[in-house]
Amino acid sequence: MEPVGRMVVHFQEELEQLKTRLLEMGGSAEEQVRLAVKGLVDRDYDLIDRTLVGDQPLNTLHIEIDSRCFTLLALYQPMAADLRTIVAAVKINTDLERVGDLAVNIAEAARRYVSHPPVKKLIDIPRMASLAQTMLRDALDAFVRRDVELAQHVLSADDRLDTLKTQIFRELLTYMLQDPHTIEPALDLVLVSRHLERIGDHATNIAEDVIFIVSAKDVRHHAGETAP
Amino acid sequence: MEPVGRMVVHFQEELEQLKTRLLEMGGSAEEQVRLAVKGLVDRDYDLIDRTLVGDQPLNTLHIEIDSRCFTLLALYQPMAADLRTIVAAVKINTDLERVGDLAVNIAEAARRYVSHPPVKKLIDIPRMASLAQTMLRDALDAFVRRDVELAQHVLSADDRLDTLKTQIFRELLTYMLQDPHTIEPALDLVLVSRHLERIGDHATNIAEDVIFIVSAKDVRHHAGETAP
Repeated sequence: MEPVGRMVVHFQEELEQLKTRLLEMGGSAEEQVRLAVKGLVDRDYDLIDRTLVGDQPLNTLHIEIDSRCFTLLALYQPMAADLRTIVAAVKINTDLERVGDLAVNIAEAARRYVSHPPVKKLIDIPRMASLAQTMLRDALDAFVRRDVELAQHVLSADDRLDTLKTQIFRELLTYMLQDPHTIEPALDLVLVSRHLERIGDHATNIAEDVIFIVSAKDVRHHAGETAP
Repeated sequence: MEPVGRMVVHFQEELEQLKTRLLEMGGSAEEQVRLAVKGLVDRDYDLIDRTLVGDQPLNTLHIEIDSRCFTLLALYQPMAADLRTIVAAVKINTDLERVGDLAVNIAEAARRYVSHPPVKKLIDIPRMASLAQTMLRDALDAFVRRDVELAQHVLSADDRLDTLKTQIFRELLTYMLQDPHTIEPALDLVLVSRHLERIGDHATNIAEDVIFIVSAKDVRHHAGETAP
């Protein structure tokens, strides 16, 4: 056995490496979302096709990060906040991998969408995408810096995403009712907005985990709302 | 400190209790899905409204199970398969909580749907729901019994869910194109089918975790597909 002092140093170093890898994975996931939405907006077939197969690095990182987490848990048997951090890392890793899947889902919808004439100029969808990407980046920064205030900020941004989603839905419904030719492509835009909403949900999950790590306080079910 | 032998007994007892609670949570989540879809099919306003507020027991169980997992990790510092089982339990717990959220999303769509005349007799949606529920039950049984074969069975059922979803989409599109009055309610049926698809995704996540626990083999990114 190594002396405890050295093990602590190793643990902190490995924890930093784990965080760096998670940031890297977050960056890749965010980039995939950006490319999928850019492909949709620019009607860029080539970009859409590249995004469709672009989640391989994410899948590789996903497995590597999971394995790092298990090694840290088994080797160092961390307690309290360190234990919560590593279990949260396992969950955040899963969230980021799903964001990558959702970017592929957006690219799939984009590929169908661009085979029809455009329904409308896309304004709110890139806005939703940019908001979801910012939420994701902020949630990961909050995790790395243990910043509860930033995590709370992510939770409140989710309401704006929800408002945009509802607005997009209503507007597309109007198009569909006026001109049945728009139904099929408009449906794909509805799906894209739902995928972006789910990316926001994953950022929210991460932000909730951050608050749990730092404060050991569970904000997930808004205990205040359950009064009799 | 207690003698190691006694700690092992305690650990196994607590692990059994954890599994029982997860099964209970799975049962509640499945029941919420069943009620939401029954409310939709029977156009039962009262049942829909009850499902909308029925996820409180799930949220309570979610917090309790999470806390049990952290206690087990901190107290017993399990290794290898036991460690993987408890980390998987944290993830499965999250999956089941999301299934509860999705049941609420189905009830929300159902409430909007029943405010319009019915688009069609619902046959494939209850079929999808029943398949998703079975997948969820099988995935949890596979977890409790460490049954890799059953877990594999869940993974293959997901393809049938996907086929049903595509079939539902095409059929509803035809209705929308023929009669614009059906657009708004048909959109809600499309959303319900997507929610059911995601319940299947959660069952798939659980099944993949089971295979990982038992074989320490990662089946999540189909390594075979990444040939150069």
